[in-house]
Amino acid sequence: MIRRGFQVVARLGHHRELLGAPRILPRLNPASAFGSSTDSLVSRFCSEKTDLKDYALPNASWCSDMLSLYQEFLEKTKSSGWVKLPSYKSNRDHIRGFKLPSGLEVSSGKGDWRIFTRCIQVDGQGYEYVIFFHPPKKSVCLFQPGPYLEGPPGFAHGGSLAALMDEAFSKIAYLAGQGLLTQSLNIRFKNLIPVGSLVVMDIEVEKIEDQKIYMSCIAQSRDQKTVYAKSSGVFLQLQLEELSSQ
Amino acid sequence: MIRRGFQVVARLGHHRELLGAPRILPRLNPASAFGSSTDSLVSRFCSEKTDLKDYALPNASWCSDMLSLYQEFLEKTKSSGWVKLPSYKSNRDHIRGFKLPSGLEVSSGKGDWRIFTRCIQVDGQGYEYVIFFHPPKKSVCLFQPGPYLEGPPGFAHGGSLAALMDEAFSKIAYLAGQGLLTQSLNIRFKNLIPVGSLVVMDIEVEKIEDQKIYMSCIAQSRDQKTVYAKSSGVFLQLQLEELSSQ
Repeated sequence: MIRRGFQVVARLGHHRELLGAPRILPRLNPASAFGSSTDSLVSRFCSEKTDLKDYALPNASWCSDMLSLYQEFLEKTKSSGWVKLPSYKSNRDHIRGFKLPSGLEVSSGKGDWRIFTRCIQVDGQGYEYVIFFHPPKKSVCLFQPGPYLEGPPGFAHGGSLAALMDEAFSKIAYLAGQGLLTQSLNIRFKNLIPVGSLVVMDIEVEKIEDQKIYMSCIAQSRDQKTVYAKSSGVFLQLQLEELSSQ
Repeated sequence: MIRRGFQVVARLGHHRELLGAPRILPRLNPASAFGSSTDSLVSRFCSEKTDLKDYALPNASWCSDMLSLYQEFLEKTKSSGWVKLPSYKSNRDHIRGFKLPSGLEVSSGKGDWRIFTRCIQVDGQGYEYVIFFHPPKKSVCLFQPGPYLEGPPGFAHGGSLAALMDEAFSKIAYLAGQGLLTQSLNIRFKNLIPVGSLVVMDIEVEKIEDQKIYMSCIAQSRDQKTVYAKSSGVFLQLQLEELSSQ
């Protein structure tokens, strides 16, 4: 049943047709794009949930560049409109209190579910990253790949960067305009990333049009002298309903 | 030093210029594309190395669809020209006996290095996949995502599929024409993949031209009724030198 529903709803190539069926994919209020809805989404997303571990916090594995840039952005959260996004183990935690669109619901299951970019829980071995967001359009993700993310010996796997781009895009697309599902992801790789070094990913919401959110990213060294990759992504807007309103 | 060398060599955007410097990136023998070199690469790549664990073997977590299709392809390796690729923990194992091009070498380091798509070693929790190759152009990758690869609750993260596409492309690009580094990766997502289900990835080497290898992939359900994603990738040809010949 779930599978059938999912196939009906998540056939992204036909989302226009699907968007005509408000019970399945509710139309968005135009005001929600770049509007007050962003503020409330950010506020909700970043609320203190002390029972959940936030994985986007410094640990002993962070290189000095990562730590100092983190501190710089943390300062900016106090006065310059930046917010630091928490990062929980599963998207089940991130969307607590919301209901997924029909056809995307799954049984809650008590298994050990992990968001892919938090799949490795040993400090420094896998993904170390933190996302800062400056509503409505700008974001920075600090990324330090560990030795479990290797591709060519000594360097991060291209796929590990691709996956984090998709993940960072999806979080920002959600906060900026309730973008939920990736429609496309295009990456051009320029330089290999040495394992253990800092990658600064500058992310922009380029536009929101026709219920799609267009994102771009440039991943480079802190001094901007080495570009690691450039990418773009398109996300589909799907509205989550609050459970309490039902 | 390593970093400087890497920056010089791996500036992929300027590979034409780099390819003019044979000491850094040796030109390939045209015969090596789709030729006897493929046979020797495959033969070397798939040779028995009994001291290394092959992660591309069935385990108790494999769903019945994955297991039966694996058996079908295994039968084809006996008579139809298909080969099953072994999958070791690190590319350091895969390229044993080869020297990376200048500037890409790293100190051997005794750390726990893992190829990204083998980063999770608990059966069934992360990536389960196996790649079959029919030289010179065709490949099939069987993929079953576990709960550590989650994106939307209950479904695989788009980034986990992107990463495996990059990984499978890179292995086939290497065997088909000594493609080593990803230049670009483009993915269009069509349907979400339920965690635990089988994805069949049909991969093709589309062409080898101007020292680039063009790859395509369609990822779908076994019955081909549900397309999960389509992708393309471009890889740069870089020749590895045998250590013994030096």
